[in-house]
Amino acid sequence: MIYLDYAATTPVSPAAADTALRLMRKEFGNPSSLHRMGFEAGREIETARGAIAASLGAAPEEIVFTGSGTHANNLAVIGGALARKRRGNRVVVSALEHASVARAAEELSRLGFEVKRALPADIPEICTPDTVLVASMAVNNETGEFTDIAVLTAAVREKAPHALVHTDAVQAYGKVPLNVGTLGVDTLAVSAHKVSAPKGCGALYVRRGTRLQPLTFGGGQENGLHPGTQAVPLIGAFGAAVREMKPFDAGPLYQELSAGLKEMGAAVYEPPRRVPDIVTAFLPGVRAQTMVQFLSDRGIFISAGAACGRGKPSEVLMALGLPPVQLNTAVRVSFGKDTALEEVNLLLEALWEGCRTLVKA
Amino acid sequence: MIYLDYAATTPVSPAAADTALRLMRKEFGNPSSLHRMGFEAGREIETARGAIAASLGAAPEEIVFTGSGTHANNLAVIGGALARKRRGNRVVVSALEHASVARAAEELSRLGFEVKRALPADIPEICTPDTVLVASMAVNNETGEFTDIAVLTAAVREKAPHALVHTDAVQAYGKVPLNVGTLGVDTLAVSAHKVSAPKGCGALYVRRGTRLQPLTFGGGQENGLHPGTQAVPLIGAFGAAVREMKPFDAGPLYQELSAGLKEMGAAVYEPPRRVPDIVTAFLPGVRAQTMVQFLSDRGIFISAGAACGRGKPSEVLMALGLPPVQLNTAVRVSFGKDTALEEVNLLLEALWEGCRTLVKA
Repeated sequence: MIYLDYAATTPVSPAAADTALRLMRKEFGNPSSLHRMGFEAGREIETARGAIAASLGAAPEEIVFTGSGTHANNLAVIGGALARKRRGNRVVVSALEHASVARAAEELSRLGFEVKRALPADIPEICTPDTVLVASMAVNNETGEFTDIAVLTAAVREKAPHALVHTDAVQAYGKVPLNVGTLGVDTLAVSAHKVSAPKGCGALYVRRGTRLQPLTFGGGQENGLHPGTQAVPLIGAFGAAVREMKPFDAGPLYQELSAGLKEMGAAVYEPPRRVPDIVTAFLPGVRAQTMVQFLSDRGIFISAGAACGRGKPSEVLMALGLPPVQLNTAVRVSFGKDTALEEVNLLLEALWEGCRTLVKA
Repeated sequence: MIYLDYAATTPVSPAAADTALRLMRKEFGNPSSLHRMGFEAGREIETARGAIAASLGAAPEEIVFTGSGTHANNLAVIGGALARKRRGNRVVVSALEHASVARAAEELSRLGFEVKRALPADIPEICTPDTVLVASMAVNNETGEFTDIAVLTAAVREKAPHALVHTDAVQAYGKVPLNVGTLGVDTLAVSAHKVSAPKGCGALYVRRGTRLQPLTFGGGQENGLHPGTQAVPLIGAFGAAVREMKPFDAGPLYQELSAGLKEMGAAVYEPPRRVPDIVTAFLPGVRAQTMVQFLSDRGIFISAGAACGRGKPSEVLMALGLPPVQLNTAVRVSFGKDTALEEVNLLLEALWEGCRTLVKA
């Protein structure tokens, strides 16, 4: 099996899985219980919170655990705009966002906000004094394109001093250095399952003093922003994975794949600023989904656009102005810390074979 | 260690933990990925969905996985009322609800709904034709009191034909038979971590054709009602735990504890209809939290009211009309399938010792 779809999800690391198992079987207390087992579970959460905070240059009390990156994005976008509705009515969201930000923005539109979409570079110019929320992702999940959020935030602050500035850092986390002080954002979302921890857990950095309106209500856990008994095994595993997280240089993998793809006549989408962990390419004359299936049958796993898109034409690639015919041929290959150069070469061989077989067919 | 706080949370069963571990380390695909690893992950979710559906007499497509029982309750209560706001403005919620229903109802009040609270028996009489939502829990988490939801639903339907009828079955699940056909409800919430599966997962039964307004937005997972990459390891573990779930008779444990408590002068709260899995008692002259701590120091774990209450005076016990002085002495003991009679006797001994030591002090 050759797994090259790390941008969709990652296998859980041994340390993270061991932590989850321990917290499921042995130290299984409810962190809200006022006895030793509860206190121990609470300490596990706080240890993880500290690890996530440290990885982002945040204070532990600025981290809220959620059930997913999607929930973290929703909490920031919807909860952030609703908490500021007296300050203004405009919401500005990048045109290249993940569905969890894009669809949350649509909900804000239904709730009466004036929602504007723009490419990241054009965001500051449509910000106004009555803009209450601005969201732009750090690394795009489909193209690997990197947006300099620190620069964007500074430009936005000048035009929209009351806006909450949010960044979806789900794909950036573990790939590029993220420091909330440097970035200057008010909220920042990450997801456990993109960094070798289990699915079912995310986190939202919420700058001290930033108000968010909760989307759900209950026993007050996570500062009332994500109530419900905390997912202790997942949170503990998230912390364990983050403590082990270190950037790896995907550059050589990118070079090898990019060169090989060009050799076979594929167009590699290379935005000027990007991470080398994600490669998007347009195959010559083969529908991406057909190729993904061909490779899957051979135990090689890549993606046709984002996993969450489930085969629908990519909104992100459309927003980038790519013609529909090219959209259908877009494959995404993404690397993880265990990816070997040999795997890239086996992928290239299989892609060659696929192109020969499928174009003929 | 003697764990007698199963109503707060349960240890994860070996089968459930094994499933979670397999889905974290080996079959770790993203269920939205359109390749074999994605399809396999999707099948794991559907297998679990089938198990939860079967346990409730529901169809698999009527089950939505959420991140917690709290989220399932919020989705039904807030999402159900919002989807019906053109039909009317009244919301009727039992006075004995868990915070996740009670606080969600408060949010509906802020959103302009007229929210009425009443004891379960009084619910039908305050239902009106413009009532859009009625919620009453099946088994109370603090007292073990059982409400006949089938009878209540039938009575509500006569008075409020347009209402969504919701029941929080988090504490009933695995303790009393639950069949959504017999109960007649539109939505029903359960939680994984109360039935030997991990924290971080819940499920909502949504009767076919019942509309709910989503609270969060994204890639459309779980019929758009709980978007975000599904928590495959937790969902798989939930399914495994539910397949093993079988009611056990806590009656003998209840009898032993109840008799012992009365012998030491404690008042056992015994509602006419209750499950024997939960015992609430008022200790003679000892603050509950002091006793919980005394026992915790000796490796015995019980609760002072619900875990989620974190020591605040119980709203449920207040709604039942108990005087504040008695509220502070209320302890909750709850049994699981592995609880031995011997553990109850050791608890009783420690309670005796605690009463002697702490009343004197």
